[in-house]
Amino acid sequence: MTADSGVSLAFLGMGIMGASMAANLSKAGFSVKVWNRSPGKPGLKKALAAGCRGAESIKDCVADASIIFSCLGDVEDVKAVLAESGGVVDFAPESALVVDFSTIGPRAAREIWETLAKSPARLRFLDAPVTGGDIGAANGTLTIMLGGERADFDEALPYLSKMGKVIEYCGPAGSGQALKLANQVLCAVNMLAVSEALSLAERFEIEPSLVVDVLKEGAGGSWALANLGARIIKDDLAPGFMLKHMIKDLRLIHDNADGAALNLPAMEMAESMFKELVEADGEAAEGFGTQAMIEVYRR
Amino acid sequence: MTADSGVSLAFLGMGIMGASMAANLSKAGFSVKVWNRSPGKPGLKKALAAGCRGAESIKDCVADASIIFSCLGDVEDVKAVLAESGGVVDFAPESALVVDFSTIGPRAAREIWETLAKSPARLRFLDAPVTGGDIGAANGTLTIMLGGERADFDEALPYLSKMGKVIEYCGPAGSGQALKLANQVLCAVNMLAVSEALSLAERFEIEPSLVVDVLKEGAGGSWALANLGARIIKDDLAPGFMLKHMIKDLRLIHDNADGAALNLPAMEMAESMFKELVEADGEAAEGFGTQAMIEVYRR
Repeated sequence: MTADSGVSLAFLGMGIMGASMAANLSKAGFSVKVWNRSPGKPGLKKALAAGCRGAESIKDCVADASIIFSCLGDVEDVKAVLAESGGVVDFAPESALVVDFSTIGPRAAREIWETLAKSPARLRFLDAPVTGGDIGAANGTLTIMLGGERADFDEALPYLSKMGKVIEYCGPAGSGQALKLANQVLCAVNMLAVSEALSLAERFEIEPSLVVDVLKEGAGGSWALANLGARIIKDDLAPGFMLKHMIKDLRLIHDNADGAALNLPAMEMAESMFKELVEADGEAAEGFGTQAMIEVYRR
Repeated sequence: MTADSGVSLAFLGMGIMGASMAANLSKAGFSVKVWNRSPGKPGLKKALAAGCRGAESIKDCVADASIIFSCLGDVEDVKAVLAESGGVVDFAPESALVVDFSTIGPRAAREIWETLAKSPARLRFLDAPVTGGDIGAANGTLTIMLGGERADFDEALPYLSKMGKVIEYCGPAGSGQALKLANQVLCAVNMLAVSEALSLAERFEIEPSLVVDVLKEGAGGSWALANLGARIIKDDLAPGFMLKHMIKDLRLIHDNADGAALNLPAMEMAESMFKELVEADGEAAEGFGTQAMIEVYRR
């Protein structure tokens, strides 16, 4: 499917992720109109350089679009841009499909789904959080986890396949978000494992690089060990995945627990360590990668 | 190097692991004499069928051996067979090399190293714990982590290479044990990650197989997720790695902490769950694989 199929795409949110994803759609030959709240962002320039057309407003961006993608920030940003007055819900064409890549948790996704479905234009919605980071977005190798109607997933697939490699339908609205939060639990707790194994190696006075190099391919192996463990050994705290984003994603798990006890004690242990880092080291620490957890063990 | 190099090998302990390892040495053409405390064991029969020769006693097994391998149980078994009266220390030839594959922790390894070095025969010792399980032992694809003298490691390498694929010198006596315990920390805590991600998926009512199938190749991926997560989904609690062995290995970490606080809170959380399973479900639970941890989350 190419641009001459006549499908017009919109993309809202030109952060690092969104800009790369919009650029990949444009490079694949699709007609993409992009918008960002603050106009001066480098991501916006990157998307325009890749052939996207800039829009002055949300209305300008989505008014002719049959599929509207978004990659925004936290829950309130996504609700404001998609589902509240002055947002997509006011300007999108009848029964347009909205696909949101932000991580906002299952409840917010279901709420947006419902608001859009009940709107005058009867918009359709897929929650579509991603993993794979800036590199995955740039290379079109993201994992994209989708919740919503199967038919809508099928309609979006030709476009999603330009942005991701593993593209998985997970179930009704919110299901993509649920799987993404499970992924964040894995990432957070695997980081505990890496930190404690390296901490033990330091205590037992063996070369910490042995932990990464020898154990990564065995039964103790993980992506976190091979990649973030390797950064710890080089004293490299650059993200990877930023502490502040991990803290936000883990907060979403609490927000979605309906007030019930979570019974995720290891996740909560990791969460409190991530927060401790930010509390102790301030704003700079927010930008560290999650592998900064090792610092908690060194105190 | 083959049997006609005249090197005579001994192998003590014909459990599942030891029997496969001795069999691989014999199949590679080496002359291997084997011994097991209880003579009727299936492992002993397997080794004999693979061409090993049976020995009546420790003395008979090691008296002519230049390299003596052992794969035994817990610390006391290994000390008794190698370093105490009536053991290898009394019967091995002058300066023979003893290579022990058991997991016993760094301190016990250093103690055995010292006892053997100071013995009249001035025996040499390598601690050489393994990972890779019964399948790795059978296929000769174990990871073997060695502590001791580098020259002794070099001498043992041609034989080790018939039993393992990744064979790593880790440093002075006890270093192989230290790396093995770091591996067990990874295995134990990665199991927390898998259990909590699957637990969250159940709570959020998505298909738990998505957690394994979609997330295993990404930033949340681990050997534990791909292999033990997959068993959980099939309600398969068969080991993998037995709970009772994991509990023993984690105990060794405490035993080697010199009374100081461990500061390995996630490891201790996993350990208390493994123990809870055994306490609640009795002897049968000891034989479950570590993935039985999911049961703690389902209570």
